[in-house]
Amino acid sequence: MRLSRFLLPILRDAPREAEIASHRLMLRAGMIRQQSAGIYSWLPLGYRVLRKIEAIVREEQNRSGALELLMPTIQSADLWRESGRYDAYGKEMLRIQDRHERDMLFGPTNEEMITDIFRAYVKSYRDLPMNLYHIQWKFRDEVRPRFGVMRSREFLMKDAYSFDLDQAGARHSYNKMFVAYLRTFARLGLKSIPMRAESGPIGGDMSHEFIILASTGESEVFCHRDYLGFDTPPADTDFDSREGLQAIVDRWTSLYAATSEMHDAGEFANLAESDRMSARGIEVGHIFYFGTKYSAPMGARVTGPDGTEHDVHMGSYGIGPSRLVAAIIEASHDDAGIVWPDAVAPFQVGLLNLRVGDSATDAACADLYRGLVAAGFDVLYDDRDDRPGAKFATADLIGLPWQLIVGPKGLAEGKVELKRRATGERETLSPADALRRITG
Amino acid sequence: MRLSRFLLPILRDAPREAEIASHRLMLRAGMIRQQSAGIYSWLPLGYRVLRKIEAIVREEQNRSGALELLMPTIQSADLWRESGRYDAYGKEMLRIQDRHERDMLFGPTNEEMITDIFRAYVKSYRDLPMNLYHIQWKFRDEVRPRFGVMRSREFLMKDAYSFDLDQAGARHSYNKMFVAYLRTFARLGLKSIPMRAESGPIGGDMSHEFIILASTGESEVFCHRDYLGFDTPPADTDFDSREGLQAIVDRWTSLYAATSEMHDAGEFANLAESDRMSARGIEVGHIFYFGTKYSAPMGARVTGPDGTEHDVHMGSYGIGPSRLVAAIIEASHDDAGIVWPDAVAPFQVGLLNLRVGDSATDAACADLYRGLVAAGFDVLYDDRDDRPGAKFATADLIGLPWQLIVGPKGLAEGKVELKRRATGERETLSPADALRRITG
Repeated sequence: MRLSRFLLPILRDAPREAEIASHRLMLRAGMIRQQSAGIYSWLPLGYRVLRKIEAIVREEQNRSGALELLMPTIQSADLWRESGRYDAYGKEMLRIQDRHERDMLFGPTNEEMITDIFRAYVKSYRDLPMNLYHIQWKFRDEVRPRFGVMRSREFLMKDAYSFDLDQAGARHSYNKMFVAYLRTFARLGLKSIPMRAESGPIGGDMSHEFIILASTGESEVFCHRDYLGFDTPPADTDFDSREGLQAIVDRWTSLYAATSEMHDAGEFANLAESDRMSARGIEVGHIFYFGTKYSAPMGARVTGPDGTEHDVHMGSYGIGPSRLVAAIIEASHDDAGIVWPDAVAPFQVGLLNLRVGDSATDAACADLYRGLVAAGFDVLYDDRDDRPGAKFATADLIGLPWQLIVGPKGLAEGKVELKRRATGERETLSPADALRRITG
Repeated sequence: MRLSRFLLPILRDAPREAEIASHRLMLRAGMIRQQSAGIYSWLPLGYRVLRKIEAIVREEQNRSGALELLMPTIQSADLWRESGRYDAYGKEMLRIQDRHERDMLFGPTNEEMITDIFRAYVKSYRDLPMNLYHIQWKFRDEVRPRFGVMRSREFLMKDAYSFDLDQAGARHSYNKMFVAYLRTFARLGLKSIPMRAESGPIGGDMSHEFIILASTGESEVFCHRDYLGFDTPPADTDFDSREGLQAIVDRWTSLYAATSEMHDAGEFANLAESDRMSARGIEVGHIFYFGTKYSAPMGARVTGPDGTEHDVHMGSYGIGPSRLVAAIIEASHDDAGIVWPDAVAPFQVGLLNLRVGDSATDAACADLYRGLVAAGFDVLYDDRDDRPGAKFATADLIGLPWQLIVGPKGLAEGKVELKRRATGERETLSPADALRRITG
């Protein structure tokens, strides 16, 4: 993509209304535009990141065996009356009447609708386990939306719902999502730590929040330092192996880890001092077993091997891709701007032409651009007639992992400069070597 | 994907409420579920088709130089008051009040919001031309939604908006979309014919509907038979060439083509009888130049080369991917079910195991499955313990382009059967040859 043809409305100064780093940087980098309180447009740069995150979330959901579908944003109030939540939900639910004065709502979540879909089609335990998910925009009418897309009213959510014959089956489904989430966050360049969360009316141990560490995080968390060294489950993990998954979950829940709400100072004090870590964290996912809370009132039942009907056991599993864009920035930025992990960078390479109009420089850039695109890389080619300082500042602000800097002086000696955004490391090398270095 | 792990709720009988072929077939094939009047969930099979269509639409928009962003579904009424459309729009607009009693709405279209984005960031003719698009769910509160996703209330729309300094520039932008649409529909397996449409308040010739022919189409259209033989503009079309694009558009608008609203029986009668074609058609896209209709009242202006400010000239360009799913079915089905074009088939291959549990058959299927997946094909493996007749019927109903039929009898002679859904053509050949034939 040529920058001269892209829409990248960089702001020099941090907007006053932005209270946290990610919000400031997303506005400055031209990633989002606020359209109303807590409602944003995703400008081209921001939307590229959002889509890359969404794709990784989808791949890992599919790998775990979950099936993607898509439920609509607008739901009928009647479904929510069946579960009793229409009256219980409060003002965060955006309630709507259509032209025929039927009560509708913009879905804040989808337990009721997915239960409705399940009960319509699935009748036998033979069709279980089943995990259905979608990636869809939700709306929660927060009284005071803030922190940009970290806590917006309209937000993108991946919500998965599992269905099992019994609690043992539900545990396996839960563990699949547990492992999928570990893999998802690792692929996004994040170190996530699962922490026990309030389990709600069901009780039990099947409720975890996934927390990433970021010095600017929203809350304090406490955990054993060894979590930092834990390996991510590999891509070829067998999701059908109950024992294999349970072993992974057991390991990842074997050490102390707690959000401030669940923190037990006494237990934490029992750790050796060198093992104790307290830090700021951001919740990026939540998995939750809730048994028959919706299946019982809504009549989602299957015939079991015993020939009788059973209310299915359900769990729900949420990741917010739009919130993740901000969370990744909170975890990965510096004074100059964003530092994207490679997997979610809007472009992997920024190609900086320091003398647009100089035929040798233009030709070298055109060559490098072609080479990178042919190798499957997303490249933002800064072909604007602007001074080098402005180009460096933009490249740092928008945080592209590689910066490939091409100017007439270097080219006279057959060299270009390659900078790694994350470390600031710079190398001077031939264009061909630079290409190999990036694509290698 | 193993069918035993997929959610495919096939219906034996056509549901009464469905009036047209695509609606009946989408319900029978388990592609969609109605959640409220005119509001649908996309079940896994249907969602796969929708995503494939969306991907092709996106690729062709990007190829033409359009930039993708994403605007929210919920908009502020204030923007629509600026253009005067808040009061003018009528009951099809879903109006909402949030918890603070602010007037909001679920966007039925995005001219106002995109104009707001443009005016916030673009100030100079040097940044033009610009075409911004998004693929987002819209809502139009139709008084009597019908025909399934062909005319639903919540629907997916690709809407692009072009911005130019003057009308000549706008014509080039218009022509880019014209050519992109020809390519898009051709890649979707459709023969589309651009037909002059009402041009609205601006007048002029820059308003076209793209119509596909389908015997069950919604309206009558009239055109010169030669359109059926016109070539689609190639992938390497130079979208920056004003002359090149104009020549393509001139050719594609050189012959008679009209919807019933625009039909001129006298002019049509002048064609040689053998050239006259009248048929049923479905509108699948609409492109439209509307000048300064929104830029003038909303103050979207750029500084021109002359140093003075100019209201930008705009056009809008719509394709409905959710509607296209139905339109493709209308254009491509038979008594047994859907006949998907390869590019949008939910799976390219159906692999039918006629004797699940027979070790040789299971092994041969597992081999073929692995081979097809390794070659990058989407395969639905019918591994259910069901009778062959049911498997054949399902495969025909859901319309997968290739059916690979594996049973013990054929395998004893080293053979499998390969059926092409579109033609019904069958071949008996070795598993290796079948694989080569498909991946060809």
